[in-house]
Formats: sequence, structure tokens, C-alpha cells
Amino acid sequence: MTDMQIPSVVATRPGGPEVLDIVTRTLPTLKHGEMHVRVHAAGVNRPDAMQREGAYPPPAGVTDVLGLELSGEVMATSPDVTRFRPGDRIMALVAGGAYAHEAVVQADVCLPIPDGLSMIEAAGIPETYFTVWSNLFQRAGLTAGETVLIHGGTSGIGVTATLLARALGARVITTCGSDDKCRASERIGASASLNYRTGDFVAEARALTGGRGPEVILDMVGGPYMQRNLDLVAEDGRIAQIAFQQGSQAQMNMGPLLFKRLTLTGSTLRARPVAMKAVLARAVEDQVLPLIMTGGAHPLIDSTFDLGDVRAAHARLEASAHAGKIILTTPACTKE
Amino acid sequence: MTDMQIPSVVATRPGGPEVLDIVTRTLPTLKHGEMHVRVHAAGVNRPDAMQREGAYPPPAGVTDVLGLELSGEVMATSPDVTRFRPGDRIMALVAGGAYAHEAVVQADVCLPIPDGLSMIEAAGIPETYFTVWSNLFQRAGLTAGETVLIHGGTSGIGVTATLLARALGARVITTCGSDDKCRASERIGASASLNYRTGDFVAEARALTGGRGPEVILDMVGGPYMQRNLDLVAEDGRIAQIAFQQGSQAQMNMGPLLFKRLTLTGSTLRARPVAMKAVLARAVEDQVLPLIMTGGAHPLIDSTFDLGDVRAAHARLEASAHAGKIILTTPACTKE
Repeated sequence: MTDMQIPSVVATRPGGPEVLDIVTRTLPTLKHGEMHVRVHAAGVNRPDAMQREGAYPPPAGVTDVLGLELSGEVMATSPDVTRFRPGDRIMALVAGGAYAHEAVVQADVCLPIPDGLSMIEAAGIPETYFTVWSNLFQRAGLTAGETVLIHGGTSGIGVTATLLARALGARVITTCGSDDKCRASERIGASASLNYRTGDFVAEARALTGGRGPEVILDMVGGPYMQRNLDLVAEDGRIAQIAFQQGSQAQMNMGPLLFKRLTLTGSTLRARPVAMKAVLARAVEDQVLPLIMTGGAHPLIDSTFDLGDVRAAHARLEASAHAGKIILTTPACTKE
Repeated sequence: MTDMQIPSVVATRPGGPEVLDIVTRTLPTLKHGEMHVRVHAAGVNRPDAMQREGAYPPPAGVTDVLGLELSGEVMATSPDVTRFRPGDRIMALVAGGAYAHEAVVQADVCLPIPDGLSMIEAAGIPETYFTVWSNLFQRAGLTAGETVLIHGGTSGIGVTATLLARALGARVITTCGSDDKCRASERIGASASLNYRTGDFVAEARALTGGRGPEVILDMVGGPYMQRNLDLVAEDGRIAQIAFQQGSQAQMNMGPLLFKRLTLTGSTLRARPVAMKAVLARAVEDQVLPLIMTGGAHPLIDSTFDLGDVRAAHARLEASAHAGKIILTTPACTKE
């Protein structure tokens, strides 16, 4: 196995989608807790584009092959892995390497794919469902009956956050960059979606919440949004920051933190220790998979691309016209 | 009772300690849940000085008589108050009015004074113990075995935080503005105290924690400390902000919030709804009073002043040479 030449996508240099190429790589020998997986599908995420541009290098010791989530079939396991066996259908969160025909995954951060969920749907789950569960529910403590403002309503994260928040009884307001996207977000489950290009989302969200503001805000924009979120969120509110698409720096007035008794939290998945991801994987399996299968939080797929068309997939991500997940498929996926 | 002229301290105009004067005020008729108390002692807190300067006006509907905490003897209760009766010794958190011979308090935010605790000691408890319990333990989740960095180690808040953190098994590092205060803070219970005027507390606290940084930081400085706290705190760390002595505005890089998975929280006591203060009062009674009486977290009194010497008490607060609480006493207190 270690000498097999595996078609794999890397960025040949920092740049746009055109720098992506399929090369061949060998896989390392399995270490403790690892499994060898035939990849069927991989999710495309914004951090992949940042990595391609050279702005988000893989952590030390991680492959330069792109891709943070995959679905596939177990081919072999390290002898100490007892939960999965060859032939099992799994989805996995990985620190890299998902854009390939085969990959090495940590068994502890895999979930079994329930019957009724396709390989394509499963590939779009780990990154956004783990991120949303961890940040919006575990860290920011969103509960039934509360209102949550979700920025980027039609992004992969935005769609998943909308679906899970609705499934758990929260009221959802989103922001989007066009009226079309606002209507799409409302079809997905938002009670109201605000066009941030044509209106003032702070004033509009305040009006929609009787002046109180939403109890929770999920933000991946950062930059000037950080102050707006602080000013808008309700008393005793929580803000979950999961990215800084407009940068992490700003002139801030942190006064509302005290006077409204706020909580600001943030996290990234990729940098977490494996043991922490494993705990999160079990929480997602126990609490989120049931919502996916029966609670109306089924993943929304925007489009699928062959792995060989990865440049087109990244171009679609960056055009920001998608709603839901963009998925890459390998030749193995056609067997479904 | 409502026509009684009660000696009471107000700021006659915004300014230094010299604007404080004793005037006479009448007390309002007791409303639902209220009690009339003969004040024995009142704690002096930094927000009192801010209010005196005109920078921290009392909330709407609250007396302009200074003072946020008191101890005393119940004189009369509203008919619906069942827990306390005339003659009971109580300590109370109030939104104003403690610097007076008599005051009206909410029964729900009173605690009984245990035997063995003097009126002077009790008067110094509510503001700092409620604040520290709420922010450092309830909101920031400090637990045994963790290290906490406490700014202002010899302030009222700093002393209480040091005593409670030690009593609950945490390791304490403090910052202070002189070597003398650092030694005082170490005598109170800090494992190490850092002079912020002569050293770099970020580098020194990092070195004292094996490079990891403290798990929790309690800050009342704000301004430039906000970024230093973000940079210093450990992965998965929590920062509790309880004041902004150097302002709430700063140019910030919030990156560590994500990359270290931080939680920032803050709150003030005074602005909370009474129901929220009442819940906190019961938590303090159940969990903190035992630590005060038997766990080594007895309040530390810096000095006492007659109510008529309130200007001198404020001057001592602002000289920042004190360690522990500054307490005002009324003529009733001599009867102890």
C-alpha cells in the first residue's frame, strides 16, 4: 500500500484555482489509531481556498494535499482500531488530504454513515456540522426559543447553522449578499434574511427582535462586523466567531462586553488536538446525526464536481453564488 | 419613618473627594420585597469614586446617595418579606444608598451575617465577593488546579479573587504597581506577584506557566491590557473583564480568540436585574460564605473611617496604597 501512487490535489504554487493540479502521492504507513480509506467524495471549504492562496498553511506534519473532510470506504485499519473494519462506510474530519483517491484518517474522528445518507451528502457533513455544533451549541449555548443571527446565510456553515438551529427550536435571522440569496436562505429555514449590501443589518435585526437584539450571533466575517455584533447582540448574549474573512483586526469598543454581560468565543477545528476532535465527533454522532436523519437538518448539496474538475469547484466557491456544499467526487463514487 | 431625616453622603458636584458631603435625605416608603436597615458599615468601591466624578451615574430610579454594599440591622420589612425580621444582622448589595445611617434594601439580595463575622467585615463582602464569584467562577469557570492571573492584586477585587481562588485550589499570579504591593499580594495568597511598572507581565507570567500562559485572567484595567491578555492567556483560556479603568477602546487583533479557542466574558453587578442578583446572592450564600467562614477566604480589611471622614476614605482609595477593603462606619457600629 505504501508504494501506491495516489492521485491527489495540491496547489503547485500560491494562487487562484488555476494553481490546483492532480499529482500522485504515496500514503504513509498506518500509525496507531489510523485507517486507510478509499475516498468517494470530499467537501470543498473556504479554508481550502485560503490554503491554496498560501494564507492557511497545513499544520506541522500534515500532508499538503488539500481537503478537510471526506466520505469513503475503509480499506485497512491499524491493528488497534476496533470500531471500524474494511468495507465500512465512514465520513471523516481530516487535517488535510481529502482531495485524493485514497487517504489516511484517524478512526476516532470518523463517523459511520447511516443508511439513507449518500457518500456525497456524507462528505459535506464533518467540517460544517462539527464547526456549528462546537461553536453555536456547545460554546455559545444556543437554545430553543432564542434568536440567532447567522452571517453568510447561504455559505456551507450558514446553511448548516440554519438547519441545526431550526431543528433545535431556535429562530434564525441570516445576512446574505443578494436578494436572491436572502430568498434562498429563507427557503432553507431562516425566518428572515437581510441583504447586507442594501440595508443596515444592525438596525434591521434589532427591529426584528423588538429592540433587544438576537441572543446569539454566528460570525465568520470579522473586521468591521466585530463591533457591529457587539453593539447588536442582546443582553446576556453570546457571539461565536469562527473565521475572520475581513481580518481579525479592528478598532474596538469592548464596553458592551461588560454592560450587556456578553460572552465572546471562537475556535477553529483544524488546530485542535485529535483527542478534542474525537470527543466532538462522539457528540456529533450522538446528538447531531439523529437531527440529520430525522430532524430536518439533512445536508444541502449545492453541486458536485469530478476531482479532475477541482479548479471549477474552487471557482464556484469563490464566485459565492452557491447555496450549500460543493462536493468533489472520485471515480469510486460512481459505484453507488 | 418616611419623614426621618437620614444623614447620607452625596457628591454635591462632579469632582475629587472634596465634593463629598453629608446631607440629609428621607427614605422612600418600603415597596414589595424591601427592608429598612440601620446601616452599621458600608464598603468603599472604585465605582463610588467614578460616580463621584460624574463618570458612572446611578441607574434610573436609584438614589444619588453613594455606596453599593452595606451591613446593618433590619429595622422593618415589607409585609411580604418572610426570610428576615427586625433585629436580624444582614449584609446587602445595593444599587446605591449605602453611605448613610439608614437605607432601603431588597431582601432578596441580602445575606445573613454568620456568627463570627463582624459588621465591618460583612460590609466589605457583597460587592467584591459577588463580583468575583459571578465573573471568575460562574462565568470564566476557574477550577482547582488551574492558574489564574489577577490584575490589581491588592485592590478589593484582587484580594477577594486571590482568597477565593486559593481557597478553591487554583494557583494565583497577580500584578501590582509596586514591589511592596507585590509582597503584600504574596502574603495574601498569590504564588507570585509581578510589578507591572518594572517588568513585562506577559513575558513573566508566560515564564511562570511553562510557556502556556494562565488558563484564566481577571482584568479590570482594559485599554492596552485587553490585547496583552488575549496574547498571554492559555489555549482554551477564559478572560473575565470586570471594569475598564484605562478605557474600553483599543486597536485589537482578535485572532487569538479563534486560534486559542478563548472565551471572553464580562459583567457589571449594578446593572443586573434584581432577580439575577437574587440568584447570585443565593449562590454566594451557599458556596462562598462557607469558604469565608472556614476556608481561609475571610475578608481582608485595609482600614475603617467614620462616615463623616468619607473624603479621607476616598482619598485613600485613590492613593492606591491600600490592600483590602476600605470601610465606612456609622455611629450605630460602635455598639458592637
